[in-house]
Amino acid sequence: MSSDKNVQVTLASRPKGWVEESNFAIVESDIPQPGEGQVLVKNLYLSLDPYMRGRMNDAKSYAAKTEIGDVMVGGTVGEVLESNNSRFKAGDVVVGYQGWQLYGLSNGRDLQIIKPGPVPLSAYLGPVGMPGVTAWYGLFNVGQPKEGETVVVSAASGAVGSVVGQLAKQRGCKAIGIAGGKAKCDYVVEELGFDACVDYKEADFYKNLKAATPDGVDIYFENVGGEIMEAVFSRLNAFARIPLCGTISQYNEVTPYAIRNIGLLLTNRARLEGFIVSEHMEVWPQALSELGQGVAQGTLKYRETITEGIENAPRAFIGLLKGENFGKQLVKLA
Amino acid sequence: MSSDKNVQVTLASRPKGWVEESNFAIVESDIPQPGEGQVLVKNLYLSLDPYMRGRMNDAKSYAAKTEIGDVMVGGTVGEVLESNNSRFKAGDVVVGYQGWQLYGLSNGRDLQIIKPGPVPLSAYLGPVGMPGVTAWYGLFNVGQPKEGETVVVSAASGAVGSVVGQLAKQRGCKAIGIAGGKAKCDYVVEELGFDACVDYKEADFYKNLKAATPDGVDIYFENVGGEIMEAVFSRLNAFARIPLCGTISQYNEVTPYAIRNIGLLLTNRARLEGFIVSEHMEVWPQALSELGQGVAQGTLKYRETITEGIENAPRAFIGLLKGENFGKQLVKLA
Repeated sequence: MSSDKNVQVTLASRPKGWVEESNFAIVESDIPQPGEGQVLVKNLYLSLDPYMRGRMNDAKSYAAKTEIGDVMVGGTVGEVLESNNSRFKAGDVVVGYQGWQLYGLSNGRDLQIIKPGPVPLSAYLGPVGMPGVTAWYGLFNVGQPKEGETVVVSAASGAVGSVVGQLAKQRGCKAIGIAGGKAKCDYVVEELGFDACVDYKEADFYKNLKAATPDGVDIYFENVGGEIMEAVFSRLNAFARIPLCGTISQYNEVTPYAIRNIGLLLTNRARLEGFIVSEHMEVWPQALSELGQGVAQGTLKYRETITEGIENAPRAFIGLLKGENFGKQLVKLA
Repeated sequence: MSSDKNVQVTLASRPKGWVEESNFAIVESDIPQPGEGQVLVKNLYLSLDPYMRGRMNDAKSYAAKTEIGDVMVGGTVGEVLESNNSRFKAGDVVVGYQGWQLYGLSNGRDLQIIKPGPVPLSAYLGPVGMPGVTAWYGLFNVGQPKEGETVVVSAASGAVGSVVGQLAKQRGCKAIGIAGGKAKCDYVVEELGFDACVDYKEADFYKNLKAATPDGVDIYFENVGGEIMEAVFSRLNAFARIPLCGTISQYNEVTPYAIRNIGLLLTNRARLEGFIVSEHMEVWPQALSELGQGVAQGTLKYRETITEGIENAPRAFIGLLKGENFGKQLVKLA
């Protein structure tokens, strides 16, 4: 595809169960021209995130579904090429919500200018972006950690989980990760500094989880759902808190895994709370400031899987849903 | 059994699944003599409550289990017969926690003197006692109802549920009950003033629940768990609150019912919170004052099933677990 054309990934059909590449269409079109008050952005990085799976369904949820033929939604970092908006000028680097496309227009309301500094551009889609703030809000505002408590987080090497555990450690908590495979678990302990990480793919998962949480679990930051959620419920302490951030293990299941031990939330007087970080914009400035400092100073570590080329975004997204990525999944667009 | 003896119901064996009468022993002994600082209480009413099922298990929970051979725990209203404690005198009527027995000793710390008034004695074990405060705390502190919201409560004709719905109505909410059978549902609507009541024993339960909650569910006060919980989860609105008070439908199940749609707590950003009212003693004075006024003025209605004789307590308790009672289950001891 020629570089003077726009390329977009649209929703071609709704998945039944697992997402397939045929659910997407790759569409070429002219680069759009900005109208009055608009800016034209050339996108450099696209963020792939589990929530996008929900938008593909024809179901009521917290956000409008993507219609067939629409461009897939998604966070982006890009460069302003042309501006008819006094807030922006050509050359500005912006974080936005341009979706799965090389070029996009914006009235500017969803764009934030990034000032050059020690934080790499792609980090604004990870630890210093939506995933980082999700971790920050879910852990601090929902989880309310106290020093000495045990915090367990699933998908611990991922964009959200990796931040949860590091923030928990900074607050004086014990951080226990759950991840798939030895490489991810080793990274979580050795690079990110968690106290332990349990491999859910191992047959001894529950036994290992129990051994890693001898004092029980005070906060369970949930990203995956299903059998792992059920296992951690069995380790909850009295007055445990469960920030419910995602259930990625269930997004492609026609029949979701059924939880047998929800009664433990009563006997333990636990609080489980679902949340969506975009509904808590009031915390973003403080969270981004702290997270940005952490990345700049090297005290907040992260890892990325970068796929090259927008035409590979569908395959990368399917890989993300299967846990094949390692750290934050991005697509490099230019 | 002679009336100058004490009669106690003790735990003879732990139930496997459903409770049976053989799990209890009825034991006769001498009436005890109060020691220094103690009072001797003759119990008039014993409260039977679902939480007692949990104490019969050999499992970790929020309260110590009852040991084999121990008297079953329970709330009581009784009369002081003898007192070696300056706070009490013979003839005082007291609410206490004497358990399943005709006579008991107390150091006085668990006893509250009831002043004669318009509130019937037995109501201190129902709407003006632990069940009433449970409803009050769960609805107001956990549920945080706002005017115009829809409140659904299961076991709606029971000691807790009946209070939940009436308090919700007083706060300007729509109150929808769930109960078993036409007689209970009619009572909930016609006597207690709920807006509607759905019979979970009907084949059309979910359809009827949907019809009764056209605007969805903002608060689900949960007393029963299992399939009913799953059904109401499907009706939750965004930012719904779920005070998790009990899961009586599951207490006798060896394999609990598994919930398939816990993911809806995320998509609806719902908060589910287990609570035990005895851990929130700070609300009791205000709650009991309001509930007592309601009963005295006739604005808070309730119904009782009164079983005569302590030897019938085991059968009545089993009936309670099966939903055979109608309103607050009591045992009249004298």
